[in-house]
Formats: sequence, C-alpha cells, structure tokens
Amino acid sequence: IQKVSLSIDEIDKGPYEHFMLKEIYEQPLSIEDTFRGRISMDHSKIFLGGIIDVLPQITQANRIIILACGTSWHAGLVGEYLFEEFARIPVEVEYASEFRYRNPVINKDDVIIAISQSGETADTLAAIKMAKEQGATILGICNVAGSSIPRETHAGVYTHAGPEIGVASTKAFTSQVTVLTMMSMLLGKTRGFLSKEEYTHLVGELTQIPDKIRTILQADDEIKKISETYQHATNALYLGRGYLFPVALEGALKLKEISYIHAEGYPAAEMKHGPIALIDENMPVFVLATKDKSYEKIVSNIQEVKARNGKVIAIVTKGDEVIKKMADHVIEVPDCHEAVAPLLTVIPLQFISYHIAVMRGCNVDQPRNLAKSVTVE
Amino acid sequence: IQKVSLSIDEIDKGPYEHFMLKEIYEQPLSIEDTFRGRISMDHSKIFLGGIIDVLPQITQANRIIILACGTSWHAGLVGEYLFEEFARIPVEVEYASEFRYRNPVINKDDVIIAISQSGETADTLAAIKMAKEQGATILGICNVAGSSIPRETHAGVYTHAGPEIGVASTKAFTSQVTVLTMMSMLLGKTRGFLSKEEYTHLVGELTQIPDKIRTILQADDEIKKISETYQHATNALYLGRGYLFPVALEGALKLKEISYIHAEGYPAAEMKHGPIALIDENMPVFVLATKDKSYEKIVSNIQEVKARNGKVIAIVTKGDEVIKKMADHVIEVPDCHEAVAPLLTVIPLQFISYHIAVMRGCNVDQPRNLAKSVTVE
Repeated sequence: IQKVSLSIDEIDKGPYEHFMLKEIYEQPLSIEDTFRGRISMDHSKIFLGGIIDVLPQITQANRIIILACGTSWHAGLVGEYLFEEFARIPVEVEYASEFRYRNPVINKDDVIIAISQSGETADTLAAIKMAKEQGATILGICNVAGSSIPRETHAGVYTHAGPEIGVASTKAFTSQVTVLTMMSMLLGKTRGFLSKEEYTHLVGELTQIPDKIRTILQADDEIKKISETYQHATNALYLGRGYLFPVALEGALKLKEISYIHAEGYPAAEMKHGPIALIDENMPVFVLATKDKSYEKIVSNIQEVKARNGKVIAIVTKGDEVIKKMADHVIEVPDCHEAVAPLLTVIPLQFISYHIAVMRGCNVDQPRNLAKSVTVE
Repeated sequence: IQKVSLSIDEIDKGPYEHFMLKEIYEQPLSIEDTFRGRISMDHSKIFLGGIIDVLPQITQANRIIILACGTSWHAGLVGEYLFEEFARIPVEVEYASEFRYRNPVINKDDVIIAISQSGETADTLAAIKMAKEQGATILGICNVAGSSIPRETHAGVYTHAGPEIGVASTKAFTSQVTVLTMMSMLLGKTRGFLSKEEYTHLVGELTQIPDKIRTILQADDEIKKISETYQHATNALYLGRGYLFPVALEGALKLKEISYIHAEGYPAAEMKHGPIALIDENMPVFVLATKDKSYEKIVSNIQEVKARNGKVIAIVTKGDEVIKKMADHVIEVPDCHEAVAPLLTVIPLQFISYHIAVMRGCNVDQPRNLAKSVTVE
C-alpha cells in the first residue's frame, strides 16, 4: 500500500463544476510546475536531473522506442516528431500492448521511454520489463511519484502536473508533451543539431506557453457557444498534419471518452484514402490549421471538406483571415513555433469535449466503462 | 501516355454484380498469381527476382521503413510484424504524407519499401524521391507494371494481382501481404533466424492460403445473412491484436469507404483507454479472434464488450466453441499459422462491407468522394 500526501485544494474542485474543467484551467500552472527548476532564467539551459546519469546512453542512442497507451501514446507521437526534428534520432512509437506480445527487435543501444500518468499502466509496465531484460536503457515519464513504472526504470522525468482526478487526461498530457519537448531540445543541443541560438529561441518559445494558454482559457465562453452547435453530433473527424496529427488523435479521444460521440483522428492527407467518404452535411470536422510548414496543405484539406458540405471547425493562428472565410467556425490560438503548437491547440479541443459532454448530461469525471488507470491487461 | 493491355474478362464483371465482388472472389487466383514462379515445388525456396540485386543491402539493413497510404499502409503494418518476427530487422511503418513533410531521419543503410497498388500514389512517390536523395535503398511493391513508383525505385516486387477496378481495394491488399510474407521469410532464412524446417513449413502454410480462401468464399451467403443484421448500423468498431490488428484497421476502412458507416479499427488492448466508452447495445464490434498466442487476451476483450451489451461478430478458427458461446455471430476461417492469418481473416470483413454497402444502396465500385488512385497530394 502506497500512502499519498495531498493538500485539500489538490483534491477539491474549487469553483469548478468538474475536476476535468479544473484540470483544463490548471494547465498554465501545471506546465510551469513541469518547468520548475529545469530551465535557466536566460533560457540557455535545460536541466533534467532525473536523466543526467544516463545522458551518455541517450545521446548515443541508435533508436528511441516510446511505449505508452491511450492519451500518453498521443504524447509519444508528438515526441516522435520532436526527437527526429531536433535530435535526429529515429523514433518508433508503439502501443505497449502490441509491443509486448509481438517479439519486437530490441537492441542494447536502444533507449525506451515509457509514458504513463499513473505509472501503473499494466501493459506499459509489462512492456518495459521485457525491454529491460533485453538490455535496453529504460526511461519513464510519469506523473505519480514512486509508482511502479518509475521504480522499474533506469531513470526518468516526473511531469509534476499534480494529481489528475478526471478520467479524461488533460493536464497530464500537456505536461508529458512539455517533458518530451525539453528532452528533445536538450538532446538536440547535446548532439549538436541545435545551435545555441536556435536552442535558446526554442526554450523561450516553450516558456511562453503558459501565458499563451491563459489567453486561450479566456475564450472558454466562445468555445462553449461553438460546442452548442455540435452537441447532438453522432460522429466527428479530427484532422491534423505533422506535430498536430497526434493532437487530432487526442482531440478525438477526448470526445469519445466523455461524450460517447464516435470521433476519429486522422493525418489530414489520409482523408482521401477513405474517411472522406464519410463526409456529408452532418459531419463536423475539427481541423488543426495553425500557421506552420503544412499550412497550405491543410487549407486544401479544408476546401475538400467544404466541397462535400462537411462542417469545419478550425483551430487557427490568431489573425488568420484565409481560413475564417472557409470554415464554419474558427478558434484562435496565439502564434508560436510549430514544435510547441500541440500544447496550445489541444486546449480548445479539451474544452469542446468537456462542454459537449456536459450538454449531453454525461458524467464528465467518471465516464461509463472507463477507469482512470488501466492497471489490468 | 501509357498503353495498357488487358484481356476482355479482366475488365468484365462476368457473373458478378460489382467489380468489388468479382475481385473478392478472384483472391485465390490472384494470390496464386503472386506466387507464380516464385516458390519452388518442395517449398524449400522463395525466389524474388526483382530484388535479387539488392538482397545484400536488404539482408544487412539497419532498419526497414515502409511508406504507404490507405489500404497499402495496412499491408505495411502486417509487414512490420512479419519482418520483425522472421527477419529480426526493426521496422517502422509511416504514412507517406506524414513522412515526407516531417524531416525524418534517413540513413544510407536504411531500406525503404513503398507499397502502392497503382504505383502512382502522389504522397508515396514524393516520399521515396526524398528518401532516395538521402542514399537509402528504395524498393517498391506495386501492382501496375511500369507505373511511376517502380520506375523510381532501385528494385521491387510486382504483386501481379491483375487490374483492380473497384475503388475499395481487396485483392491488391492480399497480394501485397503475400509479397511481404514471402519477402520476410526469405530474409529470415538469409539472415539465419529461420531454420530450414521452419522456413519450409511457413512456405507451405502460405501456399495453402488460396485453397483456404476458397473455403471462406463458400460462406458468402452465411456472411451476407449476418451482414443483414447490421446494415442499419451507424457506427462500428473492429478489434484485433498482433498480426490481426492491421486487419481490424483494414476491415474498418472497407466499411467506411463503401458503406459510409463510421467504423474504426483499434488494437484490442487500447479499447480500455477510451473507445470502450462508445460501446452500448447499438455498437457492433467485429473481433478478429483466431487461435494464436493472443487468443486468451482476445477472449477477455470479447467478454468486456459483451459486459457493456455490445454486439460481437467474431472471426474465429474453425471449430472454436468457446467464442461461439459468447459472441452474437461467429464466422469461421480454416486453421492456419498466425503469420498468414491476415490473408484469411480479411476475407469475411471484405464480404461484410460489400454486402452492407449493397443493402444500403451505395455505389460499391465508385463510392462517393473517393478516387481509385490518389494521384494528387
């Protein structure tokens, strides 16, 4: 038995109707807690004490394998883009449940990163035990200190997001992505792929995220109004490209989990290989369309959806006038570097799933059939 | 302009109402065409002339990256399980559209396999051009001889499935999986991970597939009757594990493409991380549950779905009495080695999507919004 010390306001909903809403609102602070003591004032240094002893192994890794389930798996997919872009290490992201049963190839110079909010996810725990036996270096990114996964790993980084009570993960996700972002930048610098200037600039972009999230939180009422329009939807699609493809998956999962609406995320270009057949005037399509190197492509995808009479709700960069003319609704997020855009663009999607679930009378904090941590296989 | 020579019955539907149905029925023959001249009578040799010149590079590959879109991407996922199991080479399967835009890490000793029925898929073609510039060895698995992808690759294997007219791919998929299976076994033997006996046994298992598919084809009427029950479904889930997880994705895509039912595939263990919230008495859940090393686990998953009143249609190994007692419907396929089970289990799923689409009055061969080859980005 593990005893947990929590202060009263950590397990109190405060002025919020649900823990999930409280946890959405906590994200500027929970991300700052993830930063705390880990970023130098002048943004020239990231310090991750928990992995310092294995930094040589990680720096020379032949391959990083990220193992996770559910929302943590989506964070892992963001990590794939980050590590390949900044640190130039090939990354594979695997469902822990599939990895452990399929006799995967694991080498001694592979680094495994297990991501789990609770640190108790049964499949993830079993998968790292297997990989450990093969001699790989095992890291953990967990939220609950002293839980099983951190005890099983060689090293790791806690997310420090504070207790997450709502079954649908929100602040744990953004803290996991924050850790992966810090780790990828640190590795990028250590491996010589990021110059001092690029590195400092990127760290600065990351530290601005909490304030930019505060701006998005102010749009809660506006997002709630948009959510009203789609509260009776039976289905939804979520599209994104690059860093925002995993956010599309995460947005869809949130809607599924708490609103029981069948939502599915897709890399936007795959739409033409099947899902576009589903699109008609009843299908809301949430499109992650902030200004990045895929912007022109995602604008074409929006046009394709509109040509089939789909409803488009686009998450755009503040001031975007092009998409505003095409989409049925737009939700603006502050301008940022594309590598940190997942941390901003996921916030409106969390709000949408929350508001729709409340409007449908669903039990937001304890959705049917779901457990907070999946501790059985 | 490319001229194509086709005999009349290749472009004639014959006794079939639709090209898709004809192509489902052609699979024993199209797979035999994929084998032709490539497997020795005594099953002791696989001969793939198209890749013989690059066999040293493939045998020593540090990593295989499979690039594809849509159905071909699902074939690629089956390939991941095959190559890792038999040849012990790490494999990464990527959406071509995501790979090409994300500055991926590509090394000279990586082998890239592009899979495309038409050989003209725009994103896949662009992705291999990019990888080629980085010095990787590029292979193609295509159906249309002389198309753009085979002309761009260093080597490759044609599927020889014959022209596929129906927009929803059926026989091209099983031929792609057949090629990947032959390739993985050949590599497994060359790299010394498969003994002569194992290899000969596996080749024998593969050559039995056409006859086993013939048995499944005889169940068409029975499958049609089961399909009737679910013709008015608005949603569906498809679950599988291991080799059959990609088949779950493929089954769901077929239903989406031609019946416009929102179907989604999942690795069965991920269900507890979200999708299980969707399950109620209106949700048909198609479960790939043949006898393999995940059998006990998938039986638990079926129990979980039934506990939430979901409807279970299970694809099982002939003679399975356990699942018959739990599931609402079972469809039997002949016993086989788990590595070739995708080739059998996908057939009932093709039939189900076909019959449901016909019952719903959909244009099976030319579904709305979809093109046979996605030659634009």
